[in-house]
Amino acid sequence: MEKITLYEFENRQVISMGKMIGKQSIVFEETPFILEGASVVGPKEGEGPLGKGFDVVEQDPMMGQDSWELAESLFQKEALQKVLLKAKMGKEEIRYVFAGDLLGQLIGTTFGILEYEIPLFGIYGACSTMGEAMSLGAMIVEAGNAENVIAMTSSHFASAERQFRFPLEYGKQRPFSSTWTVTGSGAVIISRKQGIAKITGVTTGKIVDYGVKDAQNMGACMAPAAVDVIASHFEDFGTAPTDYDKIITGDLGLVGKTILFELLNQKGYDISKVHMDCGIEMFDGSVQDTHAGGSGCACAATVFTSFVLKQLKKKVWKKILFIPTGALMSPISFNEGNTVPGIAHCVMIESV
Amino acid sequence: MEKITLYEFENRQVISMGKMIGKQSIVFEETPFILEGASVVGPKEGEGPLGKGFDVVEQDPMMGQDSWELAESLFQKEALQKVLLKAKMGKEEIRYVFAGDLLGQLIGTTFGILEYEIPLFGIYGACSTMGEAMSLGAMIVEAGNAENVIAMTSSHFASAERQFRFPLEYGKQRPFSSTWTVTGSGAVIISRKQGIAKITGVTTGKIVDYGVKDAQNMGACMAPAAVDVIASHFEDFGTAPTDYDKIITGDLGLVGKTILFELLNQKGYDISKVHMDCGIEMFDGSVQDTHAGGSGCACAATVFTSFVLKQLKKKVWKKILFIPTGALMSPISFNEGNTVPGIAHCVMIESV
Repeated sequence: MEKITLYEFENRQVISMGKMIGKQSIVFEETPFILEGASVVGPKEGEGPLGKGFDVVEQDPMMGQDSWELAESLFQKEALQKVLLKAKMGKEEIRYVFAGDLLGQLIGTTFGILEYEIPLFGIYGACSTMGEAMSLGAMIVEAGNAENVIAMTSSHFASAERQFRFPLEYGKQRPFSSTWTVTGSGAVIISRKQGIAKITGVTTGKIVDYGVKDAQNMGACMAPAAVDVIASHFEDFGTAPTDYDKIITGDLGLVGKTILFELLNQKGYDISKVHMDCGIEMFDGSVQDTHAGGSGCACAATVFTSFVLKQLKKKVWKKILFIPTGALMSPISFNEGNTVPGIAHCVMIESV
Repeated sequence: MEKITLYEFENRQVISMGKMIGKQSIVFEETPFILEGASVVGPKEGEGPLGKGFDVVEQDPMMGQDSWELAESLFQKEALQKVLLKAKMGKEEIRYVFAGDLLGQLIGTTFGILEYEIPLFGIYGACSTMGEAMSLGAMIVEAGNAENVIAMTSSHFASAERQFRFPLEYGKQRPFSSTWTVTGSGAVIISRKQGIAKITGVTTGKIVDYGVKDAQNMGACMAPAAVDVIASHFEDFGTAPTDYDKIITGDLGLVGKTILFELLNQKGYDISKVHMDCGIEMFDGSVQDTHAGGSGCACAATVFTSFVLKQLKKKVWKKILFIPTGALMSPISFNEGNTVPGIAHCVMIESV
C-alpha cells in the first residue's frame, strides 16, 4: 500500500491517510499510537488474577463519596489524571476526550471530567464504549484533527446494578449466567507521537439483535454482535484467526464465549486457540463468586490498559484484535418486553 | 490557506485536510457537504409556526405503538428512510450512522436503526447530540474514512418526561421556565458529494457547570455551555457575530436566551441581531402552552433539517453557526442533589 492514498470521487481528487477497506473497516497508513494507558480499579478487582497489574487499586469502592455514581466519577477522574502523569503530559495537550459510561446521561463521565475542561465527545456503546472511543479517537488523530486525544470509560458494580437491575439493598440472588460489573476506569492517550503500540485498523459494529430477553445473561445478548464484527473484520481485511496473536473480547464471560465460538464456527472461523475474554480473566470465579465473569465498560478498558498493553509493549503479542462488546439494555424498554440487542467494535493493534 | 495543510510534528511530516485552529476548533479545507436533510415531527410540532416546512407530520404521536419509547424509535426509522429517499440513496451507500437520543442506553436509536444494519457510532450529548453527530460525521467524511454518513437524533415529549421528570399520568404542573420536548427526528446525510450546504468548521464544547439544580429550567443549565463554545468559536476563528448571517442555538428557550445574551455581552459579544433559537421558533407559546419554548434533541435537528437548510439552499443565509445545546441531566444524580451541567457543540455551515 502506498504511503498516501489518492483516489478520485465525483471528479474531485481526494487525498486520504485513512483508507476505507471492505464494507465497514478502515486501515490506517499513518498509524495513530497508543502513547500510554492507565487503569484504576476497586478492591475486588485488585484481588483478582490480574490485580497486581493495575496502576491503582482503590481500597474503598465508594471513594469516600455518598453515592455510587459520584464514586464512579472519581474513578474516571483518577484514570485521566494517571494517564496524563504516566505520559508526562498536561491536560492542555489533550484536544478531545472520547468517553462514556453505563449510567444514564453519562454522569460518570460528566462529573469525572468536568474539572479538566477538555472538549468532550460523549459516546454510548454500553460495554463496547472503549472500542468505540478508541476507534473514533484513532480516526480523528490520524486525520490530523488532533495531536493527542484520550479514550476513556468507567463502570461501577453498585451503580450498574441500580441502573439496570435492582439496588444492592434489595438483596437479589444472581443466576450463574450473570456477570459481575467491574468497578474501575481505564484511559488511553491516542497520539501522533510514537508510543507503546499502534492502532492499525478498525472495524465498526452494527446493532445485532438475536431476540434475547434475559437481563441476567448479557453474554448471550452480546455474543452475536461480537461474531458479526469479528467475521466482518476477517472479510474486510482478508485475514484469518491465525493472523493474530490474540483476539480479545470485552466481557462475554463463560456463557457468551461458548456462543461466540459456536457461531463463529458456523461461519468457518475457529478462534479458540487465540481467544481471550477480559471478563473471564478479570476474576477467579471459583473463589470470588462472580459467576460467568466480569463485565461493564471498565472490564475491557482496565484489562486492556494493564495486562494487554504490557504484552504489546514486551512484544509477547505483535498483532491483536481488541473487541469490547456491549449489550444495549435499557431498564425501560426491557420492562416493556423488548429484547436486548448487542453491539461490538473491533480495534486492530500492533506492537511498535 | 493552502489547499492541503502540511505541518511538522515530532519530526514527522503530516498531511492533513482538517486543520486544527485555536484551542478547540477545526477548519475544513476539503469541506464535507450536507447532501440532504429530513425532518419528521408529531402533531403538536406540525401545528407550530414551522409546521408546513417539515417533511412529515405524523398525526399519531404513538405511531401505532404501545409505548412512547417504541414510538420514538419509529420517528428515527422514518427520518432515516426519508433522508435516503430524498437523496436517492440506498442504505448500503451509508458507511456510518452517528446517532443518539435522550433515552437511557439510547434505545430510541437502537430500535430505530436496527433493521438498517449500518455500522453505528452511538453518541450522547443530551440535546446537543445533533451538533456532536454532525461534527464527528464531518470530520470522518473529510478524512476520507467514509463517502457518506448519516447524523441523526430524536426525542419524544412523553418518553422524555418519563425519563427525566414524571410520567404524564402523574399530571404534574409545569412552571413557566420549563420547555416542551419536541416529538420527532431529524437526519442529515454528510457527504463528499456536493449538496445543499457545506460544513466549513466545528468547535467542540466542554462540560460547563454553573451549579444550576432546577430540573424545570433546562435553559439556565445549557446557556453557560453555549456561551463558552460560541466565545471559543469567535476566538479560534478570529471572527465576530457580524460575520454570520445567523447564529442558531438549539433549545435554550426564552429563559436561556436571556442568560445567553447577558453572559456573551459580558465577554464583549452582542449576538442579539443575528440570533435565533430553534426552541423559541418551534412553538407559538401564546396558543400552544409550551412556556419557555421547545426542547429535546429533535428540536434543533428538525428545525435545522427543515427551515434552516431551506434558507441555506436559497442563499438567504450564506454563513451560519448551528449550536445544539444540551443539559446533562440525570434523574439519578439530580435526585442525589447534584447539579445539571451543560454542553454545546458548534458547527459552521455555509451555502454552496
